[in-house]
Amino acid sequence: MSLKDQMETLLPAIEAELQRVVAQLDRPRMRPYYEMLAYHMGWTGEGAGPEAQGKRIRPLLVLLTTSACGSDWRTALPAAAAVELIHNFSLVHDDIQDTSDLRRGRPTVWKKWNMPQAINTGDGLFVLANLAATELLAHHPAETVLRAARILHETCLDLTRGQFLDMSYETRTDLTVEDYWPMIAAKTAALLSGCCQVGALLGGADESAQESYRSFGNYLGLAFQVQDDFLGIWGDSALTGKSTDSDLVSGKKSFPVLVGLGRGGPFARRWAEGPIRPEETAALAEGLAEEGVKMHTQETADQMNDLAIASLRTADPQGEAGEALFELAQKLIDRKT
Amino acid sequence: MSLKDQMETLLPAIEAELQRVVAQLDRPRMRPYYEMLAYHMGWTGEGAGPEAQGKRIRPLLVLLTTSACGSDWRTALPAAAAVELIHNFSLVHDDIQDTSDLRRGRPTVWKKWNMPQAINTGDGLFVLANLAATELLAHHPAETVLRAARILHETCLDLTRGQFLDMSYETRTDLTVEDYWPMIAAKTAALLSGCCQVGALLGGADESAQESYRSFGNYLGLAFQVQDDFLGIWGDSALTGKSTDSDLVSGKKSFPVLVGLGRGGPFARRWAEGPIRPEETAALAEGLAEEGVKMHTQETADQMNDLAIASLRTADPQGEAGEALFELAQKLIDRKT
Repeated sequence: MSLKDQMETLLPAIEAELQRVVAQLDRPRMRPYYEMLAYHMGWTGEGAGPEAQGKRIRPLLVLLTTSACGSDWRTALPAAAAVELIHNFSLVHDDIQDTSDLRRGRPTVWKKWNMPQAINTGDGLFVLANLAATELLAHHPAETVLRAARILHETCLDLTRGQFLDMSYETRTDLTVEDYWPMIAAKTAALLSGCCQVGALLGGADESAQESYRSFGNYLGLAFQVQDDFLGIWGDSALTGKSTDSDLVSGKKSFPVLVGLGRGGPFARRWAEGPIRPEETAALAEGLAEEGVKMHTQETADQMNDLAIASLRTADPQGEAGEALFELAQKLIDRKT
Repeated sequence: MSLKDQMETLLPAIEAELQRVVAQLDRPRMRPYYEMLAYHMGWTGEGAGPEAQGKRIRPLLVLLTTSACGSDWRTALPAAAAVELIHNFSLVHDDIQDTSDLRRGRPTVWKKWNMPQAINTGDGLFVLANLAATELLAHHPAETVLRAARILHETCLDLTRGQFLDMSYETRTDLTVEDYWPMIAAKTAALLSGCCQVGALLGGADESAQESYRSFGNYLGLAFQVQDDFLGIWGDSALTGKSTDSDLVSGKKSFPVLVGLGRGGPFARRWAEGPIRPEETAALAEGLAEEGVKMHTQETADQMNDLAIASLRTADPQGEAGEALFELAQKLIDRKT
């Protein structure tokens, strides 16, 4: 149970560091602005608490990697805060772009305040991420801090590229599974890669080990997204209860959908006829499985996870934190929700 | 004519540097995303050209300051690109927040594409600014680069604070002129301060000179905004032609409006009755002048400009670039549009 032990130590430290960074925004006259960020981070407002804060996977990856390289994870805390703030900046803007009403079970920032203030809230989280990264200077040489900052900025550029592709895919009808990989590589995998690379850099790993950790993060991100897409069609909440939760209803061009369209069979013909109704999702999910898409999706997620584990073996992480990284990878692929 | 000569040298170099930085976004599949940024920067699409690019005042301030400190302005080019990208990121988001249809005479990004893509375009410009700042490493020690990056990040935090205040003021009816200064200090003056401080830092100025340059930028920004507010009511385009251009019609809580409200006279009584119609603006502008508000506004702008000039004298800028900085300050306050 290395992961559980590690999380018990690391999660409170991550939360404290995030709160310290975001508190910099709080100045005279700025309390209502600070409240918008604190609400989104899950600290204040109705429904505040661990559920509203999310899993903090990205900062965990940073700190576990630094620790697995044999260094003190405390010296990487500003980077851990930075990646979580980057993730949350992208969520706040994503919720506006998708007109999503709920995030982690609570009204989204644009819904609770308004769209203009929500854009500014995302911008504020982003600026705080940049500031946090520069604070690594307390524990690392300036050259290392700049290298870490540059990795994070490149990662953010990828996030905006992935977001561009994701939004432009919504109206396209000519997509194939080949279009899928560049989008999730940029939108999901880039940040996980960046977390592991920065963690390794700050942990003092050499270039080659940094590259292996980066590769671990990348495949972990790809596995995570394909698994997410699997659950979006065959997961419990997609099949039972609110079938409006199914990715088939939202029309999302997820991995199984693009594979199914490529089959050119019954699923592709139904898809071409127009939006899927909630009451059709169970039968369509079953049909996709019969066309072999369910198995292919699961195999693809497993394959990406195997590649992640192989990269992690090459990186050769040490100690409890190293074991926790293997556990974390296994847990992400085994999850049912 | 130092300023004109300096601009002839610096503006093409600024434009080339900006184009180099933004080109980093252009990857396979990313051409349409790149086009959104290039359009906003005034390089492509209908109406592209110098008019669409704006005056590039902020990067000019960076380079002139570096040069006036006796250093080669070329070593500050990435910082010049960074401040202009920060300015433009804020404009793209501002146009969404204000639902403005036109920017520099052309359709805004959200109008030409859509709101979700425009949010992402602003985010992309912001990320590129961060990346550009790290490229100062080619010419400066890592410690200096980090210091410059930190100044820029702090400036961006101020921009989002100012934006928050500006948006929250829209619905408030209890504002006084005391509420005006923190808003424009953050929204307008912070970035001009940051430009001058970073330019001085990269130019090798000592702490005290950096502080004087920073102070110059701050007062220049305050003078600029008060003058802008003056022109928004008594400028040519506010009084003649399209009187819908008057700040009185948009209901903007500008400096003269807040001063006028504080007078508690005829203007304040009319304002309390509801929105101003375009056909009323000329008479109301005249009435405000009779209440002494026009003179007070002009005197305040002049006073801020005098403070800017005094700070610049203390900074003691050298050579042609130094003369150009004095000229630039004079030009900003003398402008009629």
